[in-house]
Amino acid sequence: MTGEAKKPVYQRVALIGLGLIASSMALAMREKGLAAEIAGHAKSAETRAVALEIGLCDRVCETAAEAVRGADLVVLAVPVGAMAAIAEEIGPHLAPGATVTDVGSVKQAVIAAVAPHIPAGVDFIPGHPMAGTEYSGPRSGFATLFVNRWWLLTPLAETAAAPVARLTALLEGIGAKVDTMDAAHHDQVLAVVSHTPHLIAYTMVGVADHLAQISNSEVIQYSATGFRDFTRIAASDPTMWRDVFLTNKEAVLDILGRFAEELFVLQRAIRMGDGDQLFDYFTRTRAIRRGIIEAGQDTAAPDFGRAAPASGG
Amino acid sequence: MTGEAKKPVYQRVALIGLGLIASSMALAMREKGLAAEIAGHAKSAETRAVALEIGLCDRVCETAAEAVRGADLVVLAVPVGAMAAIAEEIGPHLAPGATVTDVGSVKQAVIAAVAPHIPAGVDFIPGHPMAGTEYSGPRSGFATLFVNRWWLLTPLAETAAAPVARLTALLEGIGAKVDTMDAAHHDQVLAVVSHTPHLIAYTMVGVADHLAQISNSEVIQYSATGFRDFTRIAASDPTMWRDVFLTNKEAVLDILGRFAEELFVLQRAIRMGDGDQLFDYFTRTRAIRRGIIEAGQDTAAPDFGRAAPASGG
Repeated sequence: MTGEAKKPVYQRVALIGLGLIASSMALAMREKGLAAEIAGHAKSAETRAVALEIGLCDRVCETAAEAVRGADLVVLAVPVGAMAAIAEEIGPHLAPGATVTDVGSVKQAVIAAVAPHIPAGVDFIPGHPMAGTEYSGPRSGFATLFVNRWWLLTPLAETAAAPVARLTALLEGIGAKVDTMDAAHHDQVLAVVSHTPHLIAYTMVGVADHLAQISNSEVIQYSATGFRDFTRIAASDPTMWRDVFLTNKEAVLDILGRFAEELFVLQRAIRMGDGDQLFDYFTRTRAIRRGIIEAGQDTAAPDFGRAAPASGG
Repeated sequence: MTGEAKKPVYQRVALIGLGLIASSMALAMREKGLAAEIAGHAKSAETRAVALEIGLCDRVCETAAEAVRGADLVVLAVPVGAMAAIAEEIGPHLAPGATVTDVGSVKQAVIAAVAPHIPAGVDFIPGHPMAGTEYSGPRSGFATLFVNRWWLLTPLAETAAAPVARLTALLEGIGAKVDTMDAAHHDQVLAVVSHTPHLIAYTMVGVADHLAQISNSEVIQYSATGFRDFTRIAASDPTMWRDVFLTNKEAVLDILGRFAEELFVLQRAIRMGDGDQLFDYFTRTRAIRRGIIEAGQDTAAPDFGRAAPASGG
C-alpha cells in the first residue's frame, strides 16, 4: 500500500511525544499520504535522535513550541501527567484554525489539564486510540497498529462538527473505527476494560515476584499456564500507567471495590467447597469471550494463535 | 513429519477422557509413531462419536475398563474431580507392568484419589502437561500442543527409575520438556502461575458482566485494551477449573490472601496519590516479562503476535 496517492487530510501534523502511538501514527499517515508534512518532538534527546535516525518524521524539533508552529493538527502523545505542561507550552504558538487532539487513556483529567491552555479559534478534540502493545518508544511503532481498532473521541460541547469530521477522516484513513462518547462515560468504561485489568495484572506479577518459596526461574519456566498473559500486560509503560491510575482515580477505585467483593465471594466458595457456585460463575464468563471474538476484537485462534515457541531456557 | 518411522515407546496406550490434552496426545503420538495402538474412552457418547468420526484413536471403547485392558500405558485425562471414580473402575482391569499416568493440574489431590486403586505391579506416575488453550473437547487437539512446553512428573517415592524414564521418552517424543518435582511443591507453584491467575481473570470478567452502567457490547467492543486477555483465560473449561480450585484449596487460598494484601497496597497508593510507589511497582514487574521471553516461554512479538483482526461488530 506504500505510496498510495491520496489528498492529505492535514497539511502539517505535529506529533508531540514520539512513543508507540505517535510513531505508529507517523508510519500510517505516511503510508496513506494523509499528512503533507509531519513534524515531531520528544522531550528526551535520545528519543529525538532515534526518530531522526529511523526517519520517522519530516522534521524533528528541539521544542514542542517549534513543532506546533504552522501545524493544522497537533497530536499530544505524552503521558497523561505531562499534558498540562505541554499544553501550557504550546498554547501561545498554536495556529488559528488548528485542531489539537491527544491520545491519553483518561479523558476527563486531560480535558481539565489541556483545555484551559487552548486559545480561542483552536479546537481541542480529546481522543483515545484503543490499541497498543506492551512495547514503547519510537522504534515500537508499526503502520497497522490502528487497523480495525476503536479510536474514541470525546468532543467538548462547544466544538463544531467540521473539525471533528476532519479528524475522523484522518483516523479512519489510518484504519481506525471512530466513535464519540461523553468523557465521563469513557473514563468509566476504560476503568473496566483496561485500567483495572492492568492493575490486577501488575499485582499478580508482583505477588509471584515476592514469593520466597518459589523461585523466579520456576515462575518463568512454568508461566505458560496462565501467568504469562498477565506478565504481558504488566510489562506496559510504567509512567503511562502511573498517570492513568492517578488521573482516573475515582472510576478505578469503584471498579477495584467491586472486584474485591466479587473475589471474596469466589474465595469463600473455594473455602466452603461450593463447587456449584464456582461452576456457574465460570460458565457465565465464557459467553463474554464468545462475544469478543464475534465482534472481531480478538482472534479465535487457540492461545491467541501463538506459535510454539523456540527452544529456550 | 507425518509417518516418521520410530520404534513405538508403548504397544498399547489407553486414553481415558478425550478432551484437548488427550486428543493432542493422540495426534502427536500417531504423527511420531510412538504408540503401536491407541485406545480411547470418554464418558460422553457424543464425545466418543466425535472421536470415531475424526479417527482420533484406533479403537473407541464404551467403558474405561475395556479401554485399559492390555494397555501398557493408561493416561487419565479427565477433570481432577473425576479421577477417583475412574481409578476405582479401571483398577481391577490394569495389566501387570502397566504404567498409569494422569494429566491433572493438581497433583496431591490426584495422588490421594488414584493411588489407592492402583494394584501392585502397576506404576502410577502423576503428571501435568503445562500446555493448553482456551478450547476443550476432542476437536480442539493439535499435534504440536506440547512442543517446548513443560510436562511435570511427580513420581511417588516407591516408583523405580525405569518406568519414569520410559514415560519421559514418550513425552519428549511428542515435544515436551520433562521435569520432576515433589507433588506439594508442584501444587504451590501452580497456584501462583496458573490457578490464582485464572480465578482473578474469571473475577474480572464477572465484574464487567455485572456492571449496569456499562453495556456488555461496550465491554466487548473496547476490550482490546487489556480486558480481552482476561477473557481468553476466563473461557477455559468450567468443570476442569471448578475441580482445580476445590482440590488445590489450601495453596490457592494462600496466594489469594497475598494477592488481596498486595492489591490493597496499590489501591491505597492510588487513593493517596502516591505516584512513586506505583511507578516503582510497575517497573519491577517488567523484568519478569523479559525473563519469560528469554526462557522461550512466550513470543516477544508485540501483543502476542496477534494479527490485526478482521472487521466486525
